[in-house]
Amino acid sequence: MFSILRINTATRETRKEEYSATEFLLGGRTLSSRMVSREVPADCEPLGKKNALFFCNGALAGTSVSSSDRVSIGGKSPLTGGIKESNAGGVVGTRMSQQGLRCIALEDAPPANSSWQIIVIGKDGVEFTDGDFLAGKGVYEKSELLSAQFSTKAGCITIGPAAEKLLYTSGIACSDPHGVCSRYAGRGGLGAVMASKKIIAVVIKNDGEVKPEFTDTEQFKDGSKKIVRLLRENPVSSKFTKYGTAAMVDICQALKVLPTRNFTHGVMEGAEKINAQTMYDTIKERGGDGLTQHACMHPCAIQCSNVYPDKDGKLLCSPVEYETMALMGSNLCLKNLDTIATMNRIANDVGVDTLDCGAAIGVAMEAGLAEFGDNEAAIRLMEEIRNLTPLGRILASGCKIAAQVLGVRHAPHVLGQAVPAYEPRGTKGMAMTYLSSPMGADHTFGFTLRDEDVPTSKEGKVALSKKFQVIGSRMDAMGMCNFVRYSVRNDMGPLLDLIQARYGVSIGAKEFDDIVKETLRLEHQFNSDAGIPPQAHRFAETFYEEAQPETGEKIDITDEETAEARQW
Amino acid sequence: MFSILRINTATRETRKEEYSATEFLLGGRTLSSRMVSREVPADCEPLGKKNALFFCNGALAGTSVSSSDRVSIGGKSPLTGGIKESNAGGVVGTRMSQQGLRCIALEDAPPANSSWQIIVIGKDGVEFTDGDFLAGKGVYEKSELLSAQFSTKAGCITIGPAAEKLLYTSGIACSDPHGVCSRYAGRGGLGAVMASKKIIAVVIKNDGEVKPEFTDTEQFKDGSKKIVRLLRENPVSSKFTKYGTAAMVDICQALKVLPTRNFTHGVMEGAEKINAQTMYDTIKERGGDGLTQHACMHPCAIQCSNVYPDKDGKLLCSPVEYETMALMGSNLCLKNLDTIATMNRIANDVGVDTLDCGAAIGVAMEAGLAEFGDNEAAIRLMEEIRNLTPLGRILASGCKIAAQVLGVRHAPHVLGQAVPAYEPRGTKGMAMTYLSSPMGADHTFGFTLRDEDVPTSKEGKVALSKKFQVIGSRMDAMGMCNFVRYSVRNDMGPLLDLIQARYGVSIGAKEFDDIVKETLRLEHQFNSDAGIPPQAHRFAETFYEEAQPETGEKIDITDEETAEARQW
Repeated sequence: MFSILRINTATRETRKEEYSATEFLLGGRTLSSRMVSREVPADCEPLGKKNALFFCNGALAGTSVSSSDRVSIGGKSPLTGGIKESNAGGVVGTRMSQQGLRCIALEDAPPANSSWQIIVIGKDGVEFTDGDFLAGKGVYEKSELLSAQFSTKAGCITIGPAAEKLLYTSGIACSDPHGVCSRYAGRGGLGAVMASKKIIAVVIKNDGEVKPEFTDTEQFKDGSKKIVRLLRENPVSSKFTKYGTAAMVDICQALKVLPTRNFTHGVMEGAEKINAQTMYDTIKERGGDGLTQHACMHPCAIQCSNVYPDKDGKLLCSPVEYETMALMGSNLCLKNLDTIATMNRIANDVGVDTLDCGAAIGVAMEAGLAEFGDNEAAIRLMEEIRNLTPLGRILASGCKIAAQVLGVRHAPHVLGQAVPAYEPRGTKGMAMTYLSSPMGADHTFGFTLRDEDVPTSKEGKVALSKKFQVIGSRMDAMGMCNFVRYSVRNDMGPLLDLIQARYGVSIGAKEFDDIVKETLRLEHQFNSDAGIPPQAHRFAETFYEEAQPETGEKIDITDEETAEARQW
Repeated sequence: MFSILRINTATRETRKEEYSATEFLLGGRTLSSRMVSREVPADCEPLGKKNALFFCNGALAGTSVSSSDRVSIGGKSPLTGGIKESNAGGVVGTRMSQQGLRCIALEDAPPANSSWQIIVIGKDGVEFTDGDFLAGKGVYEKSELLSAQFSTKAGCITIGPAAEKLLYTSGIACSDPHGVCSRYAGRGGLGAVMASKKIIAVVIKNDGEVKPEFTDTEQFKDGSKKIVRLLRENPVSSKFTKYGTAAMVDICQALKVLPTRNFTHGVMEGAEKINAQTMYDTIKERGGDGLTQHACMHPCAIQCSNVYPDKDGKLLCSPVEYETMALMGSNLCLKNLDTIATMNRIANDVGVDTLDCGAAIGVAMEAGLAEFGDNEAAIRLMEEIRNLTPLGRILASGCKIAAQVLGVRHAPHVLGQAVPAYEPRGTKGMAMTYLSSPMGADHTFGFTLRDEDVPTSKEGKVALSKKFQVIGSRMDAMGMCNFVRYSVRNDMGPLLDLIQARYGVSIGAKEFDDIVKETLRLEHQFNSDAGIPPQAHRFAETFYEEAQPETGEKIDITDEETAEARQW
């Protein structure tokens, strides 16, 4: 039996329910998308009381299995107008597990002028406590205040000032093993949904006493070790261990898909100034708090995270990841890791997604509000967001709205969500994935890049995208880190064996994929019911009209192909 | 035969074509919506080169018939994402007629960094001339410069600085009989569409030599006089002659549908300070340039326009109309006609729609950016628009986007276009019209207010709205002023007789209504093809959840009823 804790944010009633269905067993996106699909009216307003927010850990949360403790957060997105699952690392998944919880649901909403509340969940129950003292404070300060009150070991979920203002790029921050809420479910504006319910933090205390039970403890131990071995042996995930995701800079530059100058180019001269080796060398050289290798959750054998120190060796930002380095770096023609880390820190503090805000700043630069490549101007624009000025709010509304307000046509998004760090005209597989995702443009949704024979050609890309949609979604489906997929893409056996050893439930590979595909179907159905038309699954017209200079490519994917890639 | 002048704004090729079909005969919205429907791909981006802009005068343009010279401007709207017809008075319709034109089409678009152009149309042909000297200037200054170059008698069409920045509430301004471009096709952001084609002005010179020919001149003269008599005898239009549209303030206050405090209330204490009598008395008292009665076009027997003078008797704004007095007055709790006229003047100068910007300022006040009722703050917000600051751009993007960026849920719009000056919870007929219009919330689309037995009840309102959708659309359909409808609502004979006497073409009342209904069908089909889902035909959720205090009413209209009201 798996517990869901339902919390009505208007009446403050709480209720625990028990379920045994497979979706509760798997948790993660399998569960969050089913809950949204069943309980949120598809046509409701995302910031209204009919929306709900579901925090779901996964099947192996709280165990010794590497990278298994991610939390999927589901709800209707104000950014895309559709269903959203955004997941984060950190310790929240573990703490939920220790409290015997598979899902926490925040339902309903009090009037907008109600006071801010913190929901505290512990072994003795649930309570609402005053959260007004957190209001307006940055996420780093909130983290300190929450740690002081509930210990650094509590699982804390909070939002930044951007979310408090209901901005569409605001994420939900989950605490890392040090009590810092730096692990973001960043995409889709779910922070604003949490704020609309007047919940400024959810704390899962470190007093949980529920330990995972096993059908076959020995088999589980062996299986768990096998995952570590697979991760260490895998050439991709093991490279992430040394360099983190920054390894993608060189790869994307070589493929001419490194987003540059508001996604008008795919190559940035001087990209080596922000590549993985430069980052590695900088961190090593500066020492101090710096770490080239760092785990966002325990246990994790990949440890792709890092701690980027400033010139004095003091923590500047942790982590600094490829997606941010591209969207807030090359996309703005910035060639300075300190600038990127500074912008990243501000984004984390005000609580906005680095991709969506990076893309919005790119649009603002194209509109002439600052020069591409101007480090100070870029930081100044981030300060506008931190100060929640009118311009800051435009930027923190994402690149679609920023483009509407600032009169820019080349807006890199699908369904309002910014295109991630792979310029779509140069990689038709990723383009297909962006176009067909129910979540808006999303790279984790189906990462084809490493498996495209001819990236610039759309031939076979419907099938390739769909193949990787399944591979990627398998990880979300059970709360695993997306990077585990490299190790099990040809054989999910090792993970399914762990489920068997943990719960005594046998799920075959095909049955599991059927569940994954059913999730995709439900997600697309939700969006259709929400009124998202097929015509929304497109890039801006400029991507079809103007060739990317380095590849000579335009988007040539048709609505029919996109529709086929959404068909499950 | 009726001429359409096609102008390719990218290649600068022009081509005159002749057509004899009924839609060319009728002109107006009949023609503009058919042209958009046929020639603009419904799913194109409104600011891309696939969109086109059609300027169509009506069947009786250039004749002696009162109020018959309006110009319908059609295109795909950036504000609503759907089809748009927005019409304006002034002399453009007349000048087109004198050049033998029924329609001017602006097609294609040059690159965004091209120079601004003026298109000059005269008896000797069409030429493109440099328009860069107009760029960035207000519409009043543009009017002076255009008048100086082409005479005050030319038919000038221009846009303001807001349109140059592609803002979604920017209108298209047409010159009045004094050479001032103050007659706005304000709604739907068509100014931005014109700007996207890099056309800063279209000038129809006053050298046209085409005179209307008549099948039966005497019958036409008699018929034309009959229209004047009908207008003078009609209690509604004759009241507009004395008081202008300001007469609606008292009516709406009495019905509790005067938009107040960002559409949260329907009654404003102190509304008499901005009502028709106060305006009339103020204008009379101040004298000088002031006029309580004024014609936007010649000939016109209604003359609902006015000239509002400042304290020294100098022209402050012409006209000041009810919709503006409500959206920029009561909606902001402003009780000062000078403030409203000042805001109106700024809006006209920067070239934005007063309704959509008034609604956006209401949203900004609800977001706490200024106090309701603060005259200086309201003018300051208009100055933000004039200066095209980030906040100004947010406001000039309309109330939907302003609400998204500023975190406000109670956004008064349908399809992104602001709700006009009749609070929908108190008038379910108007609510039905707003919800079912293909143009976004629009009062002229089907004005039920004067004919609702129980305004707060939705009973019978599908039928009532549809009845008035036809009555209102009849006027647009042939380029007549909407206010003529009061005189012919039960008998279109007098206008159809004029068509007979002018062209020798007999159009029966039923046949005419069939054309009107076919236009509605085409418009809805365009929107459907554009991907506007049925779910978009709703108000913000708050209108369904929160009762308007004075009437105790919420919106209770269902999607099914709205769909029925869109079915033709």
